[in-house]
Amino acid sequence: MSLNTFGHLFRVTTWGESHGPAIGCTVDGCPPGVRLSEADIQPWLDRRKPGTSKFTTQRQEADEVRILSGVFEGQTTGTPIQLMIENTDQRSKDYGDIAQSFRPGHADITYYQKYGLRDHRGGGRSSARETASRVAAGGVARQVLAMLVPGLKITGYMVQMGAMEIDRSRFDAGEIERNPFWCPDAQAATDWASYLDELRLSHNSVGAVIEVVAEGVPAGLGAPLYGKLDSDLASAMMSINAVKGVEIGEGMAAAALTGVENADEIRMGPDGPEFLSNHAGGILGGISTGQPVVCRFAVKPTSSILTPRRTITRAGDQVDLITKGRHDPCVGIRAVPVGEAMMACVLLDHLLLDRGQTGGARGRIG
Amino acid sequence: MSLNTFGHLFRVTTWGESHGPAIGCTVDGCPPGVRLSEADIQPWLDRRKPGTSKFTTQRQEADEVRILSGVFEGQTTGTPIQLMIENTDQRSKDYGDIAQSFRPGHADITYYQKYGLRDHRGGGRSSARETASRVAAGGVARQVLAMLVPGLKITGYMVQMGAMEIDRSRFDAGEIERNPFWCPDAQAATDWASYLDELRLSHNSVGAVIEVVAEGVPAGLGAPLYGKLDSDLASAMMSINAVKGVEIGEGMAAAALTGVENADEIRMGPDGPEFLSNHAGGILGGISTGQPVVCRFAVKPTSSILTPRRTITRAGDQVDLITKGRHDPCVGIRAVPVGEAMMACVLLDHLLLDRGQTGGARGRIG
Amino acid sequence: MSLNTFGHLFRVTTWGESHGPAIGCTVDGCPPGVRLSEADIQPWLDRRKPGTSKFTTQRQEADEVRILSGVFEGQTTGTPIQLMIENTDQRSKDYGDIAQSFRPGHADITYYQKYGLRDHRGGGRSSARETASRVAAGGVARQVLAMLVPGLKITGYMVQMGAMEIDRSRFDAGEIERNPFWCPDAQAATDWASYLDELRLSHNSVGAVIEVVAEGVPAGLGAPLYGKLDSDLASAMMSINAVKGVEIGEGMAAAALTGVENADEIRMGPDGPEFLSNHAGGILGGISTGQPVVCRFAVKPTSSILTPRRTITRAGDQVDLITKGRHDPCVGIRAVPVGEAMMACVLLDHLLLDRGQTGGARGRIG
Amino acid sequence: MSLNTFGHLFRVTTWGESHGPAIGCTVDGCPPGVRLSEADIQPWLDRRKPGTSKFTTQRQEADEVRILSGVFEGQTTGTPIQLMIENTDQRSKDYGDIAQSFRPGHADITYYQKYGLRDHRGGGRSSARETASRVAAGGVARQVLAMLVPGLKITGYMVQMGAMEIDRSRFDAGEIERNPFWCPDAQAATDWASYLDELRLSHNSVGAVIEVVAEGVPAGLGAPLYGKLDSDLASAMMSINAVKGVEIGEGMAAAALTGVENADEIRMGPDGPEFLSNHAGGILGGISTGQPVVCRFAVKPTSSILTPRRTITRAGDQVDLITKGRHDPCVGIRAVPVGEAMMACVLLDHLLLDRGQTGGARGRIG
Repeated sequence: MSLNTFGHLFRVTTWGESHGPAIGCTVDGCPPGVRLSEADIQPWLDRRKPGTSKFTTQRQEADEVRILSGVFEGQTTGTPIQLMIENTDQRSKDYGDIAQSFRPGHADITYYQKYGLRDHRGGGRSSARETASRVAAGGVARQVLAMLVPGLKITGYMVQMGAMEIDRSRFDAGEIERNPFWCPDAQAATDWASYLDELRLSHNSVGAVIEVVAEGVPAGLGAPLYGKLDSDLASAMMSINAVKGVEIGEGMAAAALTGVENADEIRMGPDGPEFLSNHAGGILGGISTGQPVVCRFAVKPTSSILTPRRTITRAGDQVDLITKGRHDPCVGIRAVPVGEAMMACVLLDHLLLDRGQTGGARGRIG
Repeated sequence: MSLNTFGHLFRVTTWGESHGPAIGCTVDGCPPGVRLSEADIQPWLDRRKPGTSKFTTQRQEADEVRILSGVFEGQTTGTPIQLMIENTDQRSKDYGDIAQSFRPGHADITYYQKYGLRDHRGGGRSSARETASRVAAGGVARQVLAMLVPGLKITGYMVQMGAMEIDRSRFDAGEIERNPFWCPDAQAATDWASYLDELRLSHNSVGAVIEVVAEGVPAGLGAPLYGKLDSDLASAMMSINAVKGVEIGEGMAAAALTGVENADEIRMGPDGPEFLSNHAGGILGGISTGQPVVCRFAVKPTSSILTPRRTITRAGDQVDLITKGRHDPCVGIRAVPVGEAMMACVLLDHLLLDRGQTGGARGRIG
Repeated sequence: MSLNTFGHLFRVTTWGESHGPAIGCTVDGCPPGVRLSEADIQPWLDRRKPGTSKFTTQRQEADEVRILSGVFEGQTTGTPIQLMIENTDQRSKDYGDIAQSFRPGHADITYYQKYGLRDHRGGGRSSARETASRVAAGGVARQVLAMLVPGLKITGYMVQMGAMEIDRSRFDAGEIERNPFWCPDAQAATDWASYLDELRLSHNSVGAVIEVVAEGVPAGLGAPLYGKLDSDLASAMMSINAVKGVEIGEGMAAAALTGVENADEIRMGPDGPEFLSNHAGGILGGISTGQPVVCRFAVKPTSSILTPRRTITRAGDQVDLITKGRHDPCVGIRAVPVGEAMMACVLLDHLLLDRGQTGGARGRIG
Repeated sequence: MSLNTFGHLFRVTTWGESHGPAIGCTVDGCPPGVRLSEADIQPWLDRRKPGTSKFTTQRQEADEVRILSGVFEGQTTGTPIQLMIENTDQRSKDYGDIAQSFRPGHADITYYQKYGLRDHRGGGRSSARETASRVAAGGVARQVLAMLVPGLKITGYMVQMGAMEIDRSRFDAGEIERNPFWCPDAQAATDWASYLDELRLSHNSVGAVIEVVAEGVPAGLGAPLYGKLDSDLASAMMSINAVKGVEIGEGMAAAALTGVENADEIRMGPDGPEFLSNHAGGILGGISTGQPVVCRFAVKPTSSILTPRRTITRAGDQVDLITKGRHDPCVGIRAVPVGEAMMACVLLDHLLLDRGQTGGARGRIG
């Protein structure tokens, strides 16, 4: 992963800031001959779009994607696909008064320390707005995956808001699209709504945990070390703004397991090997097992809040700062479609990598 | 991170398997004029070496590193440094009887599915033995860091074995080198010893959490997105065998915090900005803050255990398998020096990257 | 160099086709704090612009560049700079009749064979139009170079058109901007004009050799092997459409020299080492010597000509093909600013790389 | 191409100096299941080996390659292949007297200027000795190519020594292995032998042009721009020590052709499209046409000669220098197997890249 590019063969380079004229990305290395139009990408962007419920920022963005290159007569040509999304509601004035101060918990101070300047308007490059480009790229990846691995399905959802986790016994995939939290537990969604209302009124914000699952991933994607599927997933998810932890399968909880508990035992099923559990999260030794790939990541609470916090100015003065503007009380909510998009990009990249190295040949069992 | 190379400017390519004649790595992009000899690297390898206590594998390896290139008259020349470690105690016969079966929880099956073959001797490329190369590369990185950032200090230790966490109120850095677990809590170390003895006798193994802290990291290393310092740390740690989760600062626990709690407030100190807390783990918006960089990762329990587990053979037969051989009951123990090495490599890489892009210029505060 | 990205630290990713809505590029890794506006880039684009003389394509393009990101308050921020140039005169209908045939000497057939489809409109991605993105990126690189290495100067010019070479004894840098061929030999320019008029009337085209010289390049840029300055220059120049050969210093003629002739002898001058000749073209062992860096490349004749050539259609039918449309009779002319731009990008990239690895420290002589 | 790694998917990282204990390389990304042993690689090394005729350096090196990893039971495993060649005849004393002076035409001075030090023993990293690693890697690539594209054949030969070119009308591939110059023209080989004898006696050296042709390359390898097959070939060949120019097909001579002459006309043959000429050298728009890929490169004369040349010392003193030691009077001779090896590596890399992106699907004609 170089400064703003990720992927080995399916490579995405993103550009743009919160308050510039537009944001976007270049998708390079896309297989040719894949059906693609704006209409294939827009639905994914609409899911991430701000302003769709009272629980996300009230910034109004159409988030309309335009394909500027790489597609001809409705098909990808194999050359770079440029996706552009214009910023239509940037309202720079909102941010004028924080131009001289560093918001605690925000990247303001590190940007300034590194670059000697910063674009204070909405966080500039560090704005969650950038994630729209990822979702657009993910839309392209999904379109390719749909052609190459028809059964592959990626689903993201929130499993924790603040200290409140979902009850896995109530897990209902059908619920995910029915509440503003992408929550698979209807009861939790109700509880979260009350909790978040309260937080907003008290000028606070909160973190979240998102889980992204990919079903139908063929066995054999990844590499033993370094170029591991999980290493690339960790990098991809951690590259999203505000993410502080990434887990595969049991994740951090794997530490508390014994070898007897953790071993996913194997039996022969009608179509090949079957695992009796999935502690591994679908990845063993960096390579997919054919089971669902399970990845979780934690998003910290939005640092821009209306509660005053102690900080300093560029001149070194000590001040108390309130961050006005339009912010997500739980930015983790909108991270769900972003996590899905990153999963799609990483899986497609590894699919192409594997096809390149091995030709997709597979060891036979049984 | 390509298949077996990591880093942008300070690039490490590792090679070698558990039971081949040798393992090693090429360190490319090392600054010239740095004092370096085998004696500078060997101590770090000795810390990771197997067979040093009853809690690690009884395989006997001298783990003697040889520098084959890139050093002339005691100084790095700026050209590739080749580090080689011969395997001296590989005993292939130990593994003969598992050549046809797939160990549950192990990468055997995914290797075979991907590559159509596997090196069953000690796990081949997936053996923890590979981590010696990382430690050797880390030794080089530390030598460069000592020259470029004299105050920088990297310390790794175990904070959890199985379900048993250390008590942070008893944290004593001086304890870390005094017990076989790199444990900063003397009481926990005693408890873990009993627990691990019991586990070994019951033919079981267990996971662990390692924490690696880097103090004295200058502010300004990293990039806002994608090339984030934390993204590269996540990738680096997840690239180690058996790692299932990576956290920066509060990590997964960040989800449970509110924005008010999570904001690391800032005051002016005598030497510049000072943060009143470090929930961020020393990284904001992908860029180091100047505070300690705090990274944790979870290592799953060793999958090779003497308790029979259900699995299948290459022919598709269902069998019960016991994994004989010499294994670590808690492979997380030896991951401590490995995590330190990866931290050293990533920090140096970002130091060089930052010097390349910005020339090391910094925004002034106050 | 990946599919559409070049550079190590100063990385340029281009996108766009001849007849899409726009073309452009993302410049990643640019140092922060560099003054930059459209007005700094536009003059370079104006030099490459089509339609400025009767010797280039009559396509009318304003080639107006827009900076969409990475610049704030007139300075680069260190984040990706997106440069976009709208296509305003694409006239797709011109190309309708060649959609089914493959133009001899053109990439039509290889595109189709590789991707299973092609964008026949103006060559799609293979159009010389793409080089506008390179020139825009080069404009950014020049702006950074002007700040970091004020004395550095890059000059490109044509030294050969068809079989007609310039007479080096008449070399006058002042002539370069005075004729439509960037020719430093006024007499040759006159001869070329007559020759090219004749060629156009006879429905033919011709090749050219361009030389690009960079003066004021500091010693020490590059690497001994692989990451050689000349290796990256070769790759950069060969990546331009229609280029078939690249030379450094004596180039292919080095083969005919003896070691006695080729050795650039060294004496001490007032400011350090001075070479008595520059057969090396400013690069020894992949690293700049401090002398002018001299690079030449050959551009083949435009393949789109009005003289009928034998070819086949997609259906396999044998036909005679005339390529209507608006084409450059000597596309090498417009390659001059492109070669300069690539030189600027490669030099800046190596300047940053060197600063990253060595900190810009230099061995002292005398 | 990073500092010492080349290739996208089939990646080679080389290490080692002329006078260290060993040299070698890591081949990463090799497809699994390819038959490979030292015996498959050694013959290629034997062709490059010094001391095989009076026309190459008298250094005696067995150049025995050892495979240290990545191969199990005679097959590649898909993990990194480490190839090591021990240096057995390094005789450092030969070089002692030039440790303080910079050889004109040699990389001594640029190394020192960049790194602040240099390994003067035999040129250190810049020695032609490094090319043995390339030949070893090429041996692996050939083994894979033999499996994936059985008809592919790579042939290198010298076409020019000093000012003396071969007569193409006398071209006889059978001659190539019959003379010490890899010369396909028996008469030229005789002439060159006399000429080179004379040069050696007069303490001089001379340059050469090598041509490498790959027959049986499938159409469709490469990419339109940047990741062009010819761009990567240019970079690969220019990355070899002493190379000053690279040409594809007509190369620099393309400048002198008209569009009518240069167009390779196309007809339908029994097996698909057939070109009536190959000015393009098998590559159109960066992508292979299915015709022979033709690449030439010029090697400058060896800079280490026994004729005194004017130079300076590290202290800045002006001296006359004779380079004693064992050197090739025409280092271009041994570049023939090196050029072949680079061609093999680049073609395999692009084969894997293409398989990754397109799955090897091809547009049908006729």
